[in-house]
Amino acid sequence: MIIGRVTGRAVSSRKDEKLAGAKLLLIEELDPEGAPTGDLAVTIDHLGAGAGDVVLVTQGSAARFTAPTKDRPIDSLVVGIIDNIRLDGRETFSKSSGFARAGKRR
Amino acid sequence: MIIGRVTGRAVSSRKDEKLAGAKLLLIEELDPEGAPTGDLAVTIDHLGAGAGDVVLVTQGSAARFTAPTKDRPIDSLVVGIIDNIRLDGRETFSKSSGFARAGKRR
Amino acid sequence: MIIGRVTGRAVSSRKDEKLAGAKLLLIEELDPEGAPTGDLAVTIDHLGAGAGDVVLVTQGSAARFTAPTKDRPIDSLVVGIIDNIRLDGRETFSKSSGFARAGKRR
Amino acid sequence: MIIGRVTGRAVSSRKDEKLAGAKLLLIEELDPEGAPTGDLAVTIDHLGAGAGDVVLVTQGSAARFTAPTKDRPIDSLVVGIIDNIRLDGRETFSKSSGFARAGKRR
Amino acid sequence: MIIGRVTGRAVSSRKDEKLAGAKLLLIEELDPEGAPTGDLAVTIDHLGAGAGDVVLVTQGSAARFTAPTKDRPIDSLVVGIIDNIRLDGRETFSKSSGFARAGKRR
Repeated sequence: MIIGRVTGRAVSSRKDEKLAGAKLLLIEELDPEGAPTGDLAVTIDHLGAGAGDVVLVTQGSAARFTAPTKDRPIDSLVVGIIDNIRLDGRETFSKSSGFARAGKRR
Repeated sequence: MIIGRVTGRAVSSRKDEKLAGAKLLLIEELDPEGAPTGDLAVTIDHLGAGAGDVVLVTQGSAARFTAPTKDRPIDSLVVGIIDNIRLDGRETFSKSSGFARAGKRR
Repeated sequence: MIIGRVTGRAVSSRKDEKLAGAKLLLIEELDPEGAPTGDLAVTIDHLGAGAGDVVLVTQGSAARFTAPTKDRPIDSLVVGIIDNIRLDGRETFSKSSGFARAGKRR
Repeated sequence: MIIGRVTGRAVSSRKDEKLAGAKLLLIEELDPEGAPTGDLAVTIDHLGAGAGDVVLVTQGSAARFTAPTKDRPIDSLVVGIIDNIRLDGRETFSKSSGFARAGKRR
Repeated sequence: MIIGRVTGRAVSSRKDEKLAGAKLLLIEELDPEGAPTGDLAVTIDHLGAGAGDVVLVTQGSAARFTAPTKDRPIDSLVVGIIDNIRLDGRETFSKSSGFARAGKRR
C-alpha cells in the first residue's frame, strides 16, 4: 500500500456501467515526512475521504477485496484514513496537526 | 487508475484470436494540470474515446472486470471519459475548455 | 499493453516443465515515434514474431488468458504484430516502411 | 519480493472493516549492501517485525496467500525476518551485527 | 519476465509457514548485453540456480503457476537458467563463456 494525500477529484459521466456511482479521488504519494514522491494515482473511495486527507491506498487486485468494490474494474482504493505516522521513533504526522515538516519534493 | 490523453491508435491485423475486434488506443499519462508524466500505455477502449480525449484508464487484472473484456488477454482499459478535474479547490480541466494550463512535461 | 521491438532471443534448456517449448523473445519498449523508452521485457510468443518486428505485448496475469498460455508461469506475452501506428493524426509507423523518424532514446 | 527495513508505523482508526486489527509498517527498500533504493511501501505484518528489522516483503496478490491475510484488501506483506544476506560470496548483513557497510542512498 | 544474475542469497528462519524450505536468491536485472539495469529482486528458486548464474525470472501472480509454488505467498520465481542470448543477430551471452562485453551499469 502507499500513503498519499487527496489533492482533488475527477468526474466522469460517461463511464463503464460497473463504475456507476464511483467517487474518483486524485492522490499524490507521500513519503513518511510528507514529501511527495512524484507518483500519482486516481483511486476509488467509499470511506468519505476528502481534499487534504492523508490516506492509505491499496493497489492492484487488492482493490477488489472489499464489499463495495468486489468485481469492479478498479486497481486502486482508499482503505484507511491515516491518524498518525511514526518514523524512527518520532511522530512525523498526526491528523490534528499535520506533518511536522513541510513536505518538499524528494 | 491513471488519467491520460488519447494521442493515437495502433492497428494489428495478426493478433491473438481473443483480441478480435479490439480497438487499440495510445495513451500518455497526464498529471492533474495536464502535463505528461512520461508514462505510456496501449489500452483497449469500448466507450468510444477518440484522439485528444482525456480518459480514465484502469490497469492490470482490473481491465478484465467489464462485460466486453472478461477473460481477454488485456492489461489496460479505458473505463471513463473525464468531464472535469479539480485540484486543490480549483478546476484544472473541463471537457469543453481543456486544461487551464498548457501541459508541460513534469 | 506496451508496443515494443523484438531485439533478440534467449534460450533456456533447463527450465520449469510448464515452460516446455516456450519461445523467449527480448523486447525493448518503444514510444509511438519508435524511440526506446529504456524499459525491457522478456516475453513469450506464439504468433511467429521475429527479430525487428514491432509487437503488442500484454503484461501480468493477462499473459495467461490465451489458449496456449493458460496456467503457465509467464507474465508477458506477444498478443499482436503491429501494422501501423497513428499519432496526433499522422502515421508514425507502418509495417512495410518502418518508423517515419529514426528512433532515438527518449 | 524485496528486502526492506522497517522505519516506522502508521495508524488508521477509520479503515475498511476487512483491515480490522491490521498492523501497518513503513518499509524502505534496501539493496543487498543496506543502501535505500528510494522505493517505499506500507505493509501488513503478522510476524512481529519491529522498527529497524530487515524484512522480506511480498507484493501484489501474493500478499493474500497466507492464512491471516486471505481475501483482505492488501498488496504488501512481511513474510520473513532476514537473518543474513550474502552477496558475491561475502556476508553483507547479519541480524546480530547489521550491515557491514553503512547504507548510503544508491 | 526479466533476465537477471544471481548475486547472492538471503536466509530467513522466522518466516511465514507457507515459505518453509524456500530458497531465497538475490537477483539484479541485466540488459541483453549483461549490464545491470539497476532493478533488484528477491526470488524463489527450485531449479538449482547458483551464484553468478544468468536466469529467467517471472514476476507477480505468474510465480505461483508451477507445481512447487502453487498458493505460496511469492511474487518472483526463477523459471529458467539461460543458455544463450542473441541480440540483433549476434550472440551476446553463452553459459560457457559469459557475456561478450563486460556489463556496465546502463
